[in-house]
Amino acid sequence: MDAFALSYEDIVAAHKRISGAARRTPVLTSSTADGRAGGALLFKCENFQRMGAFKFRGAFNSLSRFTEEQKAAGVVTFSSGNHAQAVALSARILGIRAVIIMPRDAPAAKVAATEGYGAEIIFYDRYSEDRDALGAKVAAEQGLTLIPPYDHPDVMAGQGTTAKELIEDAGPVDLLLTPLGGGGLLSGCAVATRELCPDCEIYGVEPEAGDDGRRSFHSGRITTIETPQTIADGAQTRSLGRFTFPVIRGLVKDILTVSDAELAQAMRFFAERMKIVVEPTGCLAAAAVFSGRLDLAGRRAGIVVSGGNVDMEKYAALLR
Amino acid sequence: MDAFALSYEDIVAAHKRISGAARRTPVLTSSTADGRAGGALLFKCENFQRMGAFKFRGAFNSLSRFTEEQKAAGVVTFSSGNHAQAVALSARILGIRAVIIMPRDAPAAKVAATEGYGAEIIFYDRYSEDRDALGAKVAAEQGLTLIPPYDHPDVMAGQGTTAKELIEDAGPVDLLLTPLGGGGLLSGCAVATRELCPDCEIYGVEPEAGDDGRRSFHSGRITTIETPQTIADGAQTRSLGRFTFPVIRGLVKDILTVSDAELAQAMRFFAERMKIVVEPTGCLAAAAVFSGRLDLAGRRAGIVVSGGNVDMEKYAALLR
Repeated sequence: MDAFALSYEDIVAAHKRISGAARRTPVLTSSTADGRAGGALLFKCENFQRMGAFKFRGAFNSLSRFTEEQKAAGVVTFSSGNHAQAVALSARILGIRAVIIMPRDAPAAKVAATEGYGAEIIFYDRYSEDRDALGAKVAAEQGLTLIPPYDHPDVMAGQGTTAKELIEDAGPVDLLLTPLGGGGLLSGCAVATRELCPDCEIYGVEPEAGDDGRRSFHSGRITTIETPQTIADGAQTRSLGRFTFPVIRGLVKDILTVSDAELAQAMRFFAERMKIVVEPTGCLAAAAVFSGRLDLAGRRAGIVVSGGNVDMEKYAALLR
Repeated sequence: MDAFALSYEDIVAAHKRISGAARRTPVLTSSTADGRAGGALLFKCENFQRMGAFKFRGAFNSLSRFTEEQKAAGVVTFSSGNHAQAVALSARILGIRAVIIMPRDAPAAKVAATEGYGAEIIFYDRYSEDRDALGAKVAAEQGLTLIPPYDHPDVMAGQGTTAKELIEDAGPVDLLLTPLGGGGLLSGCAVATRELCPDCEIYGVEPEAGDDGRRSFHSGRITTIETPQTIADGAQTRSLGRFTFPVIRGLVKDILTVSDAELAQAMRFFAERMKIVVEPTGCLAAAAVFSGRLDLAGRRAGIVVSGGNVDMEKYAALLR
């Protein structure tokens, strides 16, 4: 574990830092889902997290560690949506100026929410511009600290508290599945799970259209792809990160992929049977289980439902 | 209280009877909702109840009190949906035969769920046939016990456990609001609330199109109306009951009404901001608060979110 960017102790420290600010979200169950899967499914519902997604954990943990100088100057980040809101809300709570670099086609609800938290927004074109370069430029010009959406040890440690809570509240699990974009959630959860349930099989699930994670995992080196076209807008990442990849490669059993149609099916199941609103990206892990990718007979599977921020127009269209 | 069909002790007994079978549903909060209302809103989420609505409480309590002879013969009921599923599921759990008399235009999801629980269904036309008479006829012919959807002391006692849990889990409230159809939920919750929070203001909320409850409350005698046309299909009742009316008249402060448009707005708020799926009827109490009917400044309001069973087609159409 020494080679990784974060340890279980970092996750424990992050958990202390965020408690009081972050919600301890519920673990929901469904006898219908269990019946179909043949095992016990434990849904960790981060759609009920503050600002509607797990991203608050990593952002708040990161900003809480700022020095007085960093706090006085402010924070900058780039994000397709939920990390933007997470940084904006965390910054407001902690009294820090926030600048957010967002793709021009980000969901309107996410843009509005980010502005609502008082952040300044700079738009870019996600299909032509390099957000990493833009983020570094804005940070340097204005003396801001850049907190990227996933590839940062403090972000990863914050996200890892999701699996820590799941296992503490629902008991040991035989499998753990999380959505996979850049790997912040998966890597953090993998470190927490390996500590708390050493024999647990850990899986990441990404959209079929953007299977860079699966390819990187199997080839052993980070593969970069074009921005994938998928309804899972939170997983439209082009590659894993230099901090997240080694953790995933070292602790994860496999990376699975699901189609947009399978995501929409899972979203409908969550609405119709479990009465919860889950965004497409938040359905990734559940869709893999609902689609029968794994044998769950007699086993307990922890499933991270990562968020619930979705434009109502888009949501309604996917439900029909 | 002696004149009422149920006492607080009946609710305590019902609570013991249903615990283990019914879920103790969560009380959710929303800082956005609080900010708009100017007070603290405590949402008791019965959309997470078994079969998706509070109705399970009353049905399970009623069937649990059957004698061996009644259990051997079976149960019959009439319902626009949620009570049907509640009786069907309770009967299955307790090993009792169930016959359900349902309106031909009941939501498809509710019909399918009722059949899924193994009940036998008899359809009727809610605009021309008298369901009470039909229920009595089927009961007499087949020796079944009739458990009506609201006007029965055991049903009312079961529904009252909703407010008991709300207050036990979230603390005392200054106001309590529940949806109002035939009055089973409101009357049961009123008895529980009067005991646990003697000074609490209790309100029922019904659809504008079917304001028989408000008229009965103010005139002092039960008013019967034509079946109202509203998206709140669970509140398409024609009158309060002979058991529910005296309790409501005696303990409730007022009956409020909301429009279908206000119900749809509340439904969107629940989906977009709180990430929960609530059926139109389940939005009644919340819609009254969101629409500013009451002054909540500095006060704590308990709001019963009564259910989440809605056809996805209809739901999607209302969200847009």
